[in-house]
Amino acid sequence: MRKKWVGSLLAAGAMLAFPASAFADEAASNTQLQAGLNSVFVFLAALLVFFMQAGFALLEAGSVRMKNAGHVAGKQMLTFGIAIISFWALGFGLAFGNGNSFFGLEGFFLSGDNVTASFDAFAAFDVPTTIMFLFHLSFAAVSLAIACGGLAERAKLSVYIIFGILFSIVIYPIVAHWVWGGGWLGALGMQDFAGSTVVHLTGATAALVATVMLKPRLGKYNKDGKPNSIPGHNQVYSVLGVLIIWIGWFGFNPGSTISALMDGFFGFVALNTNIAAAAGALAALLISWAVLGKADIPSMLNGVLAAFVAITGACAFVEPWAAVVIGAVAGTIAFFSAQWFERKGVDDPIYAFSVHGVAGMWGAVSTGIFAAPRLVEITGVGQAGLVYGGGFTQLGVQLLGLVGTFIFVLIISAIILYLIKMTTGLRVTEEEELMGLDLSEHGTYGYPEQMKMASESGAKGSAL
Amino acid sequence: MRKKWVGSLLAAGAMLAFPASAFADEAASNTQLQAGLNSVFVFLAALLVFFMQAGFALLEAGSVRMKNAGHVAGKQMLTFGIAIISFWALGFGLAFGNGNSFFGLEGFFLSGDNVTASFDAFAAFDVPTTIMFLFHLSFAAVSLAIACGGLAERAKLSVYIIFGILFSIVIYPIVAHWVWGGGWLGALGMQDFAGSTVVHLTGATAALVATVMLKPRLGKYNKDGKPNSIPGHNQVYSVLGVLIIWIGWFGFNPGSTISALMDGFFGFVALNTNIAAAAGALAALLISWAVLGKADIPSMLNGVLAAFVAITGACAFVEPWAAVVIGAVAGTIAFFSAQWFERKGVDDPIYAFSVHGVAGMWGAVSTGIFAAPRLVEITGVGQAGLVYGGGFTQLGVQLLGLVGTFIFVLIISAIILYLIKMTTGLRVTEEEELMGLDLSEHGTYGYPEQMKMASESGAKGSAL
Amino acid sequence: MRKKWVGSLLAAGAMLAFPASAFADEAASNTQLQAGLNSVFVFLAALLVFFMQAGFALLEAGSVRMKNAGHVAGKQMLTFGIAIISFWALGFGLAFGNGNSFFGLEGFFLSGDNVTASFDAFAAFDVPTTIMFLFHLSFAAVSLAIACGGLAERAKLSVYIIFGILFSIVIYPIVAHWVWGGGWLGALGMQDFAGSTVVHLTGATAALVATVMLKPRLGKYNKDGKPNSIPGHNQVYSVLGVLIIWIGWFGFNPGSTISALMDGFFGFVALNTNIAAAAGALAALLISWAVLGKADIPSMLNGVLAAFVAITGACAFVEPWAAVVIGAVAGTIAFFSAQWFERKGVDDPIYAFSVHGVAGMWGAVSTGIFAAPRLVEITGVGQAGLVYGGGFTQLGVQLLGLVGTFIFVLIISAIILYLIKMTTGLRVTEEEELMGLDLSEHGTYGYPEQMKMASESGAKGSAL
Repeated sequence: MRKKWVGSLLAAGAMLAFPASAFADEAASNTQLQAGLNSVFVFLAALLVFFMQAGFALLEAGSVRMKNAGHVAGKQMLTFGIAIISFWALGFGLAFGNGNSFFGLEGFFLSGDNVTASFDAFAAFDVPTTIMFLFHLSFAAVSLAIACGGLAERAKLSVYIIFGILFSIVIYPIVAHWVWGGGWLGALGMQDFAGSTVVHLTGATAALVATVMLKPRLGKYNKDGKPNSIPGHNQVYSVLGVLIIWIGWFGFNPGSTISALMDGFFGFVALNTNIAAAAGALAALLISWAVLGKADIPSMLNGVLAAFVAITGACAFVEPWAAVVIGAVAGTIAFFSAQWFERKGVDDPIYAFSVHGVAGMWGAVSTGIFAAPRLVEITGVGQAGLVYGGGFTQLGVQLLGLVGTFIFVLIISAIILYLIKMTTGLRVTEEEELMGLDLSEHGTYGYPEQMKMASESGAKGSAL
Repeated sequence: MRKKWVGSLLAAGAMLAFPASAFADEAASNTQLQAGLNSVFVFLAALLVFFMQAGFALLEAGSVRMKNAGHVAGKQMLTFGIAIISFWALGFGLAFGNGNSFFGLEGFFLSGDNVTASFDAFAAFDVPTTIMFLFHLSFAAVSLAIACGGLAERAKLSVYIIFGILFSIVIYPIVAHWVWGGGWLGALGMQDFAGSTVVHLTGATAALVATVMLKPRLGKYNKDGKPNSIPGHNQVYSVLGVLIIWIGWFGFNPGSTISALMDGFFGFVALNTNIAAAAGALAALLISWAVLGKADIPSMLNGVLAAFVAITGACAFVEPWAAVVIGAVAGTIAFFSAQWFERKGVDDPIYAFSVHGVAGMWGAVSTGIFAAPRLVEITGVGQAGLVYGGGFTQLGVQLLGLVGTFIFVLIISAIILYLIKMTTGLRVTEEEELMGLDLSEHGTYGYPEQMKMASESGAKGSAL
Repeated sequence: MRKKWVGSLLAAGAMLAFPASAFADEAASNTQLQAGLNSVFVFLAALLVFFMQAGFALLEAGSVRMKNAGHVAGKQMLTFGIAIISFWALGFGLAFGNGNSFFGLEGFFLSGDNVTASFDAFAAFDVPTTIMFLFHLSFAAVSLAIACGGLAERAKLSVYIIFGILFSIVIYPIVAHWVWGGGWLGALGMQDFAGSTVVHLTGATAALVATVMLKPRLGKYNKDGKPNSIPGHNQVYSVLGVLIIWIGWFGFNPGSTISALMDGFFGFVALNTNIAAAAGALAALLISWAVLGKADIPSMLNGVLAAFVAITGACAFVEPWAAVVIGAVAGTIAFFSAQWFERKGVDDPIYAFSVHGVAGMWGAVSTGIFAAPRLVEITGVGQAGLVYGGGFTQLGVQLLGLVGTFIFVLIISAIILYLIKMTTGLRVTEEEELMGLDLSEHGTYGYPEQMKMASESGAKGSAL
């Protein structure tokens, strides 16, 4: 088929970057145009989700102390690189290649040619496998970014490399296969439109295991177990990070339609996504104001993210009014969850489990409650929810999915991190943690001039 | 119609995120493909304009002092959330729903289904209402961001909430309805392609009212009325913010064609937009160099924005050479306007009125001068401008539009802000302003470590 | 043709921003839909590459000292503005207008109408000239951004203006014409898909000339010639910058197909681009760890960029496994090259020549080695590479192209910079360099509060 566009080498005088215009002699058919349009749409969606890497880098860098900021930003790029190579080599085939109910067995080291036969999971779509790869890679990289949040400010750099490779091969792809790639949860009819469970709960569960195994940061808890606040050093970064993630979510959810046609159904998904996030922002800010007596900006940011996480699974199944409810509830839940874990001695520096895990569970459950009949009909997945008189079957499937995912990721993450702990070790030394991971892991500060100032002004060695 | 894509629940082995590819059996028709293409195009445009929220957050955060930076960034996300919910619930229907010459009366709480009947204003377009909502929401949110610039560094957080809701319901939608939604200015034939008047002058007028009612920041003016410079704390943020806004404007103006077809007319609009901005940058930098004796970076940034604002209304009506003139003049006007208002005792911290208001007026007027016959023919709006021998009628309509908008927004903003002043109050206390709004409004610094250093190095309490 | 969409002035009640929906009465033809789709695709690609300006601003600002950060960010916007106006007025016509084997002679001051006759180089494409202009402008602006890297931290602001204009008119367009616009290198069959040579080597060669002529920064070398490290002040900026550039490269390379059809060939290009970059990141980080004993973040960032630069020319001609090899080798080469130049007394503050020049040369050579027969057939350019049994002809053409480009840019850059040196001078005074270019060139610090703290804490006047 490709021969069709083969151009002859152009004579001098014509542009040579790419000499043959597609279909120079005859226009594309409707089938080709539709595939081209859907390809551009999914490509755009993949780029938006890739951009979330910058958002997570900023959010996390802003949420840690100055002495760790360069490290945190740099390891985001490192784990992105690891996710790309690992998912290309093995993860994508394990997740979406043809196989059994637990993992795929084809499509490794994606070559870009003649690979559709290895991916029956994509048979219903007209987007090329290379672009499906980019789209799903972007999801895998987000899931890893969430997981790595639990390692913040005390794990060795080498842990990110080893854990990153294994997460991208034996954790994320397996869950993705179960739900989206032809696995047992998909067979049971689990609803997870863009990955409240697959992407967010998976990453967050690994983060929870990591943060518990690593133990709290030095100075986080007093001897009596009372937590201290360790504020992040730059709220502008954090806000910018969440705004970038906001933009990225317009790829995450609407892109999961894998189609720009369908009477613009992706626009409906985008509408739900956007108003849920706004509701999460407002709910969390007001709750923090009521509970803490101050309009806490980090709480608002967590509320936005929690709302996104929850609506991710539900966005195509619920009406806009329900999206607002789902978002507002998610923002509220994440706030109280973060407080609860902190009181219980779990030092989750960027609240990864509350924001992506607890809210992810709420998202999985929410479709069982709010799924509207007309949307179930459009999407062709599952049944209407409780408020529309649907039964408990779907809710049961959703619960089974989230519990199964949680237990699987919990066990595998614990095994991996335990093996790392026994071999190279997980955590930097106390001295290294005090000096900061910029110096200990990379040999230079991320902010050399400002750290010099801090040292000279006597701020060094403080609780910060 | 939607039944067409309803897929049956897939058996195990197929991807379940979204089981039914659109038109799996038959390719989309040309009408459907055109609608799909235009939908993706307008969706992309909406995302680009949403991204401007990050640009405004950075520009404004960079333009204020360190003690207010977290607050400024955070309130940007807060007002974005407010705009989304308010515009979804009421604003969109008031702006574009069917109604009378002054406001719409249908289409509230957009459900995403069966709503085209409520929006005759969109009847000529083939893009779904949900995506038209996202696109126009992005405009409303920009207008609110501009308005809030006038509140910077001294307004209470609660003011942003109350004013944000009311601006998004009773100010922006009314003006949008007048010009674009079936109102009296549209009936008179006002030319405002992407909102020099509707978006920018509206936001800027509210900012002017706010900054006058709030009075200048402490320390801005000496007792003899001479202004002091209060430089922003981070020009890298400001430059990055304007570069993001630059990218966003490729959604703002080209997206307003609402069509990717038309022989690529949106490319022409993008060309004009881009060269106008470049001309604004160069003009403002050179003017600042000539007048102040230094190549002032904030002046250059204002020049870029002013040029964008001016070309926003004119971009589809003028030739590229005129776009360069409009941009260069806008950059120059905004520079002198900013100086003039500062001398006159109006402390507009981010020069919102000069950049968005004065340049917005120039943009409205510019089409009356430069509108080219061939472009008037393509767009089908209004008449050729003065330099092409057009009459004064169009110029009169443009002036009526900008004066009407200015007076309406001035009065309503003043009423709203006066009521807030009488009830909750507008401005933080002197003590709170000195300590900074990060602490007073949110309980923590945006830069806790750096503020600690500042305090220890004795910089605290300085004029900064 | 345009008359088709001319709408009559709408009556009150309809939206007036743009009254006539395209093809309201009849749907677009397949030819029109294909052109529309390709236009949106190339427009998106252009925006992504424009966004790289923000990436370069952050990368470079993060890589310099605090006292120069505002200047560095601000001059990025300045040079962007200069590139836009210069390329619109003259550069685009010189590069792609019809002319002779060395430069074009038509298409100046692009008007947006009736210009296809001036651009035979674009005859095979169905994207409007205005959008081709935006796309190629985005490349020219990147090339200038690279060139300006060599001027960092010691050149006068006026040099950026004069050099920026001349680079955008007499350097970049000439090379672009040679390869892509109908010139002699294109006639010889040079393979350079998206500009390893045209964009990156050109910019980097100019940067090398600039950095050599300007001489090293004060304090970079001890009297015995041993280099000192001058670390950049903010690694978070640098990482964010490279992540933005990463996103931008999805426009750079896939966009260079100028078509969203062709069975999604742009997705294959994107796949290659992405895995090459990841391989470059990992290779460079591990090399730096092995050689320097620390996992150096700036080295990783350079590795990412070098890999992108190398794959830019090769992305459409090589298989994914080769893309990984090309990226990893590029990351490694750039690391050792940067070390070598630094030892040899060349102070290239952001390693522009190693990252964009040396890696660009490797990219040009790499297609002669790895070009796969099936991809040569699809693209219709050149011949298969050495590993597939292709001959040395293509390798010879590639070498001729890179040597020719290098010598041309070397000579013209040297002449331009020599003339500037003789007239206005290139470098600020020693005193100005010590105080920083924020103050010397713009009259204010980019970080006024932080520089005040630095001064008060005694850090001022240090080696930093």
